[in-house]
Amino acid sequence: MRIAAVDDRLALLHGDLALDVERASDGRFGADPQAIYERWDEFAAWAEGASGGEPYASLNAPVPRPRQVFALGLNYADHAAEAGFDLPPMPLTFTKFPSCLAGPEESVAVATPKVDWEVELVVAIGRRAHRASDGWAHVAGLTVGQDLSAREVQLAGSPPQFSLGKSFPGFGPTGPWVETSRSDDLAISCTLNGET
Amino acid sequence: MRIAAVDDRLALLHGDLALDVERASDGRFGADPQAIYERWDEFAAWAEGASGGEPYASLNAPVPRPRQVFALGLNYADHAAEAGFDLPPMPLTFTKFPSCLAGPEESVAVATPKVDWEVELVVAIGRRAHRASDGWAHVAGLTVGQDLSAREVQLAGSPPQFSLGKSFPGFGPTGPWVETSRSDDLAISCTLNGET
Repeated sequence: MRIAAVDDRLALLHGDLALDVERASDGRFGADPQAIYERWDEFAAWAEGASGGEPYASLNAPVPRPRQVFALGLNYADHAAEAGFDLPPMPLTFTKFPSCLAGPEESVAVATPKVDWEVELVVAIGRRAHRASDGWAHVAGLTVGQDLSAREVQLAGSPPQFSLGKSFPGFGPTGPWVETSRSDDLAISCTLNGET
Repeated sequence: MRIAAVDDRLALLHGDLALDVERASDGRFGADPQAIYERWDEFAAWAEGASGGEPYASLNAPVPRPRQVFALGLNYADHAAEAGFDLPPMPLTFTKFPSCLAGPEESVAVATPKVDWEVELVVAIGRRAHRASDGWAHVAGLTVGQDLSAREVQLAGSPPQFSLGKSFPGFGPTGPWVETSRSDDLAISCTLNGET
């Protein structure tokens, strides 16, 4: 199942078509792409039986206003070494403030002279989790994001707090959709000017 | 003007009385204490003319689900020295994840062996701000909070990211109300077992 936002309205993608959820459900579910995560089980059950839709031109951020964003830093040994940091005893958890989130096709202003990019796997949570050991049971789906970082802001002060420098407007592009199929065999990549 | 939550419903406090906003406004404003910050100017104009209310027993968190929480660290020289940190070139900005917010009278579990407290001035923002130089123009009101911190989690890893260790359930008590009167002459304090 692929969950997306078309004209900022909740949609299901079926091949090349987008099904408007509010209209297809006769208003049982609203048009707000964020609201279904409060009713995830009910929505997922309904959506499994839906089909069809209409052609669409572009997509917005599929999860536009999450209550909180947990960003896990230095969770890959190679990347930690590249950045000059030791591997932490637990994943370093900062946030990308929700106001930085953007869609998959938006233009983003380069806010400072030293902006880096980094492709990220993004997990949309659909069921409340606290001290959970069964991670997948809480996952609504997966999407891809870019963690744009203004390094001079991210690394200012001591100890530097990463969140603000990673949260300029548009610094959290996400999408193009939330994929609910589950797999541990995932690959993501980033290509900039032809270089992967 | 004092804005509060009674039984998780938006209320205005007038002396010892609480006026239920949804009922007093005939539904023009809803009962959700969070929703008025999306309609702040309209709400503030209406609330200035309201009066009266009913006795109440206790208060909940006045701003229970902010879209984002900016926590500013090491912004007092004395406190930075006490914690062993140099003053940063700009305020260190982390978050207290919104799920940690609690009301002014809740019991909070001490999550780890090294939990510290610290009283904070809390600013509720009522108008969108970006690259703003007129700070007060964006402020809805002020309240008081506790920044509870599990120090061993806050300071794990390098560079340590403060947010998660400051966001255990209940680690952000706030209240008792949002005060909209404006002043730069403010004092807050904290008393623990009789010691200020």
